[in-house]
Amino acid sequence: MVVYLDNAATTWPKPASVYQSMRDCMENFGANPGRSGHSMAVRAERMIDQTRELLAKFFNISDPSRLVFTLNATEAINLGIKGLLKPGDHVITGSMEHNSVIRPLTLLSDHGVEVTKITVSQADGISPDDVRNAIKKNTKLIVLNHGSNVTGTLNPIGEIGRIAHESEVYFMVDCAQTAGMFSVDVQEMNIDLLAFPGHKGLFGPQGIGGLYIGEGINLVPLKEGGTGGNSEAYYQPEQLPSRYESGTPNTPGIAGLSAGLKFIMNEGIEKIRSKEEGLVDQLLSGLHQIPHIILYGPQTHKNRAAVISFNINNADPSDVSVVMEQIFNIAARSGLHCAPDAHKTIGTFKNGTVRVSLSYFNSPDDVNKCLEAVSAISRELAR
Amino acid sequence: MVVYLDNAATTWPKPASVYQSMRDCMENFGANPGRSGHSMAVRAERMIDQTRELLAKFFNISDPSRLVFTLNATEAINLGIKGLLKPGDHVITGSMEHNSVIRPLTLLSDHGVEVTKITVSQADGISPDDVRNAIKKNTKLIVLNHGSNVTGTLNPIGEIGRIAHESEVYFMVDCAQTAGMFSVDVQEMNIDLLAFPGHKGLFGPQGIGGLYIGEGINLVPLKEGGTGGNSEAYYQPEQLPSRYESGTPNTPGIAGLSAGLKFIMNEGIEKIRSKEEGLVDQLLSGLHQIPHIILYGPQTHKNRAAVISFNINNADPSDVSVVMEQIFNIAARSGLHCAPDAHKTIGTFKNGTVRVSLSYFNSPDDVNKCLEAVSAISRELAR
Repeated sequence: MVVYLDNAATTWPKPASVYQSMRDCMENFGANPGRSGHSMAVRAERMIDQTRELLAKFFNISDPSRLVFTLNATEAINLGIKGLLKPGDHVITGSMEHNSVIRPLTLLSDHGVEVTKITVSQADGISPDDVRNAIKKNTKLIVLNHGSNVTGTLNPIGEIGRIAHESEVYFMVDCAQTAGMFSVDVQEMNIDLLAFPGHKGLFGPQGIGGLYIGEGINLVPLKEGGTGGNSEAYYQPEQLPSRYESGTPNTPGIAGLSAGLKFIMNEGIEKIRSKEEGLVDQLLSGLHQIPHIILYGPQTHKNRAAVISFNINNADPSDVSVVMEQIFNIAARSGLHCAPDAHKTIGTFKNGTVRVSLSYFNSPDDVNKCLEAVSAISRELAR
Repeated sequence: MVVYLDNAATTWPKPASVYQSMRDCMENFGANPGRSGHSMAVRAERMIDQTRELLAKFFNISDPSRLVFTLNATEAINLGIKGLLKPGDHVITGSMEHNSVIRPLTLLSDHGVEVTKITVSQADGISPDDVRNAIKKNTKLIVLNHGSNVTGTLNPIGEIGRIAHESEVYFMVDCAQTAGMFSVDVQEMNIDLLAFPGHKGLFGPQGIGGLYIGEGINLVPLKEGGTGGNSEAYYQPEQLPSRYESGTPNTPGIAGLSAGLKFIMNEGIEKIRSKEEGLVDQLLSGLHQIPHIILYGPQTHKNRAAVISFNINNADPSDVSVVMEQIFNIAARSGLHCAPDAHKTIGTFKNGTVRVSLSYFNSPDDVNKCLEAVSAISRELAR
């Protein structure tokens, strides 16, 4: 039986209710939501509306219609960044962002958008003072992850949100590594644009994500097309969520996400974080005991995402992860994890790190097996 | 038990193997494809590659990597149209297109792209001569559906493809209403861009679609982000399919689509079309016998998609579909079906039509029930 420690890429397994609700959706109301008036279509639409409401409650969004579904967090980030920024605008970001943020910004910087990349502390995240000092007259947006997908480092989202709010700059957060483990409150944190994947900490399937779009923000859509309502108009409708949801949505994916959210709300986010913190504590404490381990990011289990990056001296991380799997049956990930800037920040470009990422469904036994494997590999390499 | 006749919106039910393969994917190899080296991730990636190869075989595409997965056909159409056309380009389309084509073109026409909309015959589709005559020096693209989602009218795709090829104009086809029932051969039909949904005639779930991008065509991507490989680059990679598939894909959706394709290949497309043609023949013959029925589009079952639009004299189509469902438990669709131009073409703007659309899983008994319902409603309205 595989020990799955690649939950930062996608959580596995999901709660059984996720598989069941997807199948129930497809078998019992697998019609096209919002397109027809018959009861299967209406039931599909109602399920989607209810999921939107659940997510709104989860992120403290007052108007659920401002939450739009996308294929994944990457699409949500593209919609937010490219839908908002125009030539002449200035955007501030950090040095530990994922390519889903960096690649759209690189493209825009070739088309007249000014980009400031602030060096982030791998232990403490971005410095609020650095952000404040970087704001200029033409600053339109600050975009940051809540937690790094390489080191689990948290950015001080609440403080940055206050600074953005005071400076009348929009604030966009990518909560791919924190949603479901940490509370993300768009009102308290002054978040104007929140991008999330459904298939990580929210326990939905791959193929679904979303973007919250704050009041008064009018993004240029990435796509136009059929929206169910307003069929007579040649232009994309103005009202949300239709404006940003052209074509048939991933209805079974939304049903799965809904079950994932209900699972989290039932268990309670505190209980989930507490368990994950315990596992991270066990893992970090163990890794600290193993010789030749270089551990990146925050060195303790408090105030961090459940994503741990390490190396064994000069060993190629991909060799380590291969041995972890082939000898010890542990699924981890090595390399750059689609975040080259993060590795430049922590000094692991270009080989990257071995990344171990935990979920609520991992056990102390999984962590023990991981520690035994890393310990054995470290001993073997030292011979 | 509902009689489901809304298959042009989404087919239902799916083959049982579709539900099973989605669950198998999520339970047994629910990792992130292309992101990690461990065996669950590799298995997910291999399944996606194999599905790409199946689709390539299905559409006679020589290089599977030129087939990219999208959220739905609408995204595929947006990628093709907006990724190709630049200000000053001329594009030719028909008067019976879906909003997924018309809305992007309307937007582009506001930004310097010239659009010619050719009036289509509801019986025979677009006239090849009209298309030939519309081609100008700056014509870059002809974009047409294979079959109308309102009337089932087929466009003469083969002939238009020849004209496009001779004139060195790109040819884009939306096969949303024909894939799985008619053979679509990109080489024989000279199709440069082929957009398809997974959840209609291909029997996959909602949430998956795709675009074939012909050799030598370099589209501007809609999105940039993580692509698994080439993590070190700040720019979107050049190679396909990664260039157009940023972020985590809908892996369970692709697994479902794969099962749908295998089902079709097993049954044989001829057998599927033959059964659907039989049902359409039965339905049309029956409708022709009912007084007060106005039938749009092709009047016989040959050479058409299994989508039938009608009205009962001056009755509001939405009233008719409500009675069909509430009294007779038949799920049909009424209104504009996201294709206002088609209704202007057939004279049913703005109330639209009642649309009945069939699938391989319908039976002659379903058609009889539909005919009984329409007959009873027609009698009732005539009193």
